[in-house]
Amino acid sequence: MESRNVTQHISQQFNDELETLREQVMAMGGLVEKQLTDAIETLVDMDDARAQKIIQQDTLVNALEVKIDEECTKVLAKRQPAAGDLRLIIAIIKTVTDLERIGDEAEKIARMTLEIFQQEPLIPLHKKHLKDIKNLGKHVIEMVRNSLDAFARMDVDAAMQVAKQEQDVDEQYAALSRQLITYMMEDPRSISSILDVTWVARALERVGDHANNIAEYTIYLVKGKDVRHTSFEKMEQVARGGQ
Amino acid sequence: MESRNVTQHISQQFNDELETLREQVMAMGGLVEKQLTDAIETLVDMDDARAQKIIQQDTLVNALEVKIDEECTKVLAKRQPAAGDLRLIIAIIKTVTDLERIGDEAEKIARMTLEIFQQEPLIPLHKKHLKDIKNLGKHVIEMVRNSLDAFARMDVDAAMQVAKQEQDVDEQYAALSRQLITYMMEDPRSISSILDVTWVARALERVGDHANNIAEYTIYLVKGKDVRHTSFEKMEQVARGGQ
Repeated sequence: MESRNVTQHISQQFNDELETLREQVMAMGGLVEKQLTDAIETLVDMDDARAQKIIQQDTLVNALEVKIDEECTKVLAKRQPAAGDLRLIIAIIKTVTDLERIGDEAEKIARMTLEIFQQEPLIPLHKKHLKDIKNLGKHVIEMVRNSLDAFARMDVDAAMQVAKQEQDVDEQYAALSRQLITYMMEDPRSISSILDVTWVARALERVGDHANNIAEYTIYLVKGKDVRHTSFEKMEQVARGGQ
Repeated sequence: MESRNVTQHISQQFNDELETLREQVMAMGGLVEKQLTDAIETLVDMDDARAQKIIQQDTLVNALEVKIDEECTKVLAKRQPAAGDLRLIIAIIKTVTDLERIGDEAEKIARMTLEIFQQEPLIPLHKKHLKDIKNLGKHVIEMVRNSLDAFARMDVDAAMQVAKQEQDVDEQYAALSRQLITYMMEDPRSISSILDVTWVARALERVGDHANNIAEYTIYLVKGKDVRHTSFEKMEQVARGGQ
């Protein structure tokens, strides 16, 4: 009886550790989502103090990546998890890498804002471009939020939604890119400022990729199948299938 | 005595498994390095058949990533490795992600080649630009090779060399970017083709980042310290320090 209590106790401790890890991933996700939202608002408002803050805060994101990774390694060494628990740890290790890279893209957007701000004379981005970036940003932030929700709730349907959104974001990005090239050709004086918009759009498209990766880890976590590098249809098949 | 034989036998099997994993990483690394080398040559020679082949072969790179990941998970579940063995598995899981992304960048360069090739009228990239890209590519490929060598030989000094090379590549990329913007402004008819060069340069810069990540995992593997997001000086300190 006592030994059973000990087993339960250990298993309860283990559960707590896994729960703490999940909470840390969600906290990191929340911070990254905020960094990205702020970065886009900062670009639109040309707020250089806020851009500085985003750049500084990227070290917090980096520190969380290192910390969570370290704790995952500790849990692996101490608990020797199997099956679903092992998949959870692997999914967490991979998710934090993508979250850190989303943080990097937010930081890049903030650096771009500072660069634009420091130009003499200051030529803020054209309203039309800002509207396009805000639009793309809105979709991408939604993808990040949905991918984190899917991960938190281990919700395969929500993960599939993210994969679907990625197709839309890719199309939106491709259309915007073509448009920007046309603008540059029509008005060569705008090349430098439109290139800045192009880099921001590219950064957002990458964020969408990372959110999609996180959605794929959720499917791996729940279904035990690696759906990276498969078609959308194949993903759907795995998502709908039994475990 | 018999039980000791069994232990040795299991440990020998375990060693063989780890060795096989390392060999698979090196094979994947070799393939990725070849893809990248081919992609740059193909861009220079405007060889569309070869570009197609690179795109097709990216599925091989992807399959290797999934396979090695799967085997790492199996080893984790079956062997419950600790200390250095655990670090090796973690380093491998992270390394294959970066290798896969290097493969992606090679594929993107091949797609860009096809796009240029399909333009009517066909305007190959300017010799000056091709020379710049070849130069940057040469350095980046060297970084990839050195990072794989460092990983294979668990050589911390070689890993530090890669970190040093990354600083050079970043500078080279920044100078090239500035130059390309100037060209675009001087000759707006060249915008589209120079943008292609810009994307290729950007892809190469990213490859350098991934090679640097692999070098950092080598330091983590050997020294047991996570040196991501630290300064070059801090990395050197860890690399020179005892285990």
